[in-house]
Amino acid sequence: MIACYPARLIRPLSYNGKQLYSSRSDLTMSTPFQIGLVQMRMTPDPAQNLETAIDGVKKSAAAGANVVCLPELFRTQYFCQRQDPALFDLAESIPGPTSDRLGAAARACGMVIIGSIFERRAAGLYHNTAVLLDADGSIVGLYRKMHIPDDPLYFEKYYFAPGDQGFPAFNTRFGKIGMLVCWDQWYPEAARLSALAGAELIVYPTAIGWHPREKAECGKAQHEAWELMQRSHAIANGIYVAAVNRTGHEGPRGGGLEFWGGSFVCDPAGVIQARASHDLEDVIVCPCDPARIENTRRHWPFLRDRRIDAYGELTRRCIRGSNMTSGNL
Amino acid sequence: MIACYPARLIRPLSYNGKQLYSSRSDLTMSTPFQIGLVQMRMTPDPAQNLETAIDGVKKSAAAGANVVCLPELFRTQYFCQRQDPALFDLAESIPGPTSDRLGAAARACGMVIIGSIFERRAAGLYHNTAVLLDADGSIVGLYRKMHIPDDPLYFEKYYFAPGDQGFPAFNTRFGKIGMLVCWDQWYPEAARLSALAGAELIVYPTAIGWHPREKAECGKAQHEAWELMQRSHAIANGIYVAAVNRTGHEGPRGGGLEFWGGSFVCDPAGVIQARASHDLEDVIVCPCDPARIENTRRHWPFLRDRRIDAYGELTRRCIRGSNMTSGNL
Repeated sequence: MIACYPARLIRPLSYNGKQLYSSRSDLTMSTPFQIGLVQMRMTPDPAQNLETAIDGVKKSAAAGANVVCLPELFRTQYFCQRQDPALFDLAESIPGPTSDRLGAAARACGMVIIGSIFERRAAGLYHNTAVLLDADGSIVGLYRKMHIPDDPLYFEKYYFAPGDQGFPAFNTRFGKIGMLVCWDQWYPEAARLSALAGAELIVYPTAIGWHPREKAECGKAQHEAWELMQRSHAIANGIYVAAVNRTGHEGPRGGGLEFWGGSFVCDPAGVIQARASHDLEDVIVCPCDPARIENTRRHWPFLRDRRIDAYGELTRRCIRGSNMTSGNL
Repeated sequence: MIACYPARLIRPLSYNGKQLYSSRSDLTMSTPFQIGLVQMRMTPDPAQNLETAIDGVKKSAAAGANVVCLPELFRTQYFCQRQDPALFDLAESIPGPTSDRLGAAARACGMVIIGSIFERRAAGLYHNTAVLLDADGSIVGLYRKMHIPDDPLYFEKYYFAPGDQGFPAFNTRFGKIGMLVCWDQWYPEAARLSALAGAELIVYPTAIGWHPREKAECGKAQHEAWELMQRSHAIANGIYVAAVNRTGHEGPRGGGLEFWGGSFVCDPAGVIQARASHDLEDVIVCPCDPARIENTRRHWPFLRDRRIDAYGELTRRCIRGSNMTSGNL
């Protein structure tokens, strides 16, 4: 599905009818580019999943994408459903075989690629890492997932050390890009820091799904909340946001996880520009125009009014004197 | 309109089929209460607006509300559409005539009231202030609006000094309540700090509307973004959120502002529980159950995983080395 709605909240970058500057030149604003998302269904075979991913990269290139993002941990089925020390064998270094192959694809297609890799950083030290490959195939930067979930069938704290390098944004041939991963999408702090570091687009490689037994009761609200949170990051920061998820069921029948797909791109006003289905592999491509960031932020100047003098306690777990389930204590 | 959807994402607070504790006792959790919102159309007469507000308070009490919130600056039409030093005459002290009248209503109805007052704190020092009256009529606390907008027809920086007392939450007879005001609703930082201070419910007295000339092109997206941002605060923090807006057109025909109503309450999963229309005065009443906060936060344990070691730069305006409209600088 490719569905790009008409631009809203956009006015020309002109004054008294005259174009003051192009988006290419004097304000060092990035030029428009297209983001592609490869929504995949993972097989038990990592080699086959890599071929599917490379195929999706090529399809997105053919559809005009300049930047393409793959789902979280796309080489494998979602192994965090169980704790097993043997599964650390799935990890690899960066640079390593997957980043090499993605780099070659980036160079061949002339496009930026965001991959997601189970990274072995040192003996016994593993991360859930997004790697950013520029259009020349070089590694521009890594993002090691900062917020690590741990819930039934998502035993990530067992596998992944929390990232230690914050929430950066990286210049590429096409736009300045922030990478965050899955559970990060529930944290406004992460998106804000990436945006303050200059991200024009934040991509979220993701692996999120329904517990089959909960789906009937809670599935709709869970999916809506997930999409809504990420749209809120676009609005709060005036940036593009894209999430790319896997699809399909993994695990025992009646149990396991049904990954809910629904990969999407939204614009700086939070309006969905393109959205994949819940249950099919798909490649979606959508334009990102940095001039819309400029325009949206002019009309919703939230960054102007942040109370940076009053945010210090955001580094507290709980604020002194509060009783988070309190009555009149 | 009163429309309360079935509870979702809720499971009993029990283990092995036994109720472990009631929500009234050992965990010092607040008891369930009902929030009322009074959506009003303001006349040019402050005395008449006060009577309308008091009438709305009584109606919400009759409908079962224990806590009621009035719109932003409900005593007057939205005077910030123009800059005029004579308009500072509309301000009053706290305590003062409006807070006294609201306190009497709170005592008479046995309910908590959140009012919004143009406060004269000292000569030449004015705030946009929410006042919280407990069910005995006493003033529990003030919140002085921290994020002050300034946009065409919303000239608030002229009238209101930014608040200097942060983002507190206050215990009342019915629940622990955070008050934020209008423009604050675009800032995840504000909601987070209020929630960390213990708020079970954040109320947003609001005055937001469409520029009539923009409504056809942008109106739907603007309203959706406004509602979505506040729902995101409910989800990110696992709390109830309520916004109460004014309705009706104020200002010259074809110009001025058309306040968009749409007052609403959403639950800790961000699901809308009740919503008023765009264009009618209305009183909505909706239950808030602190046990749903406990349950939602157990299933979405976002507060557990906040990276408080990595949020320090949220107090920066822009992060070093970033060029927020950059190409490859």
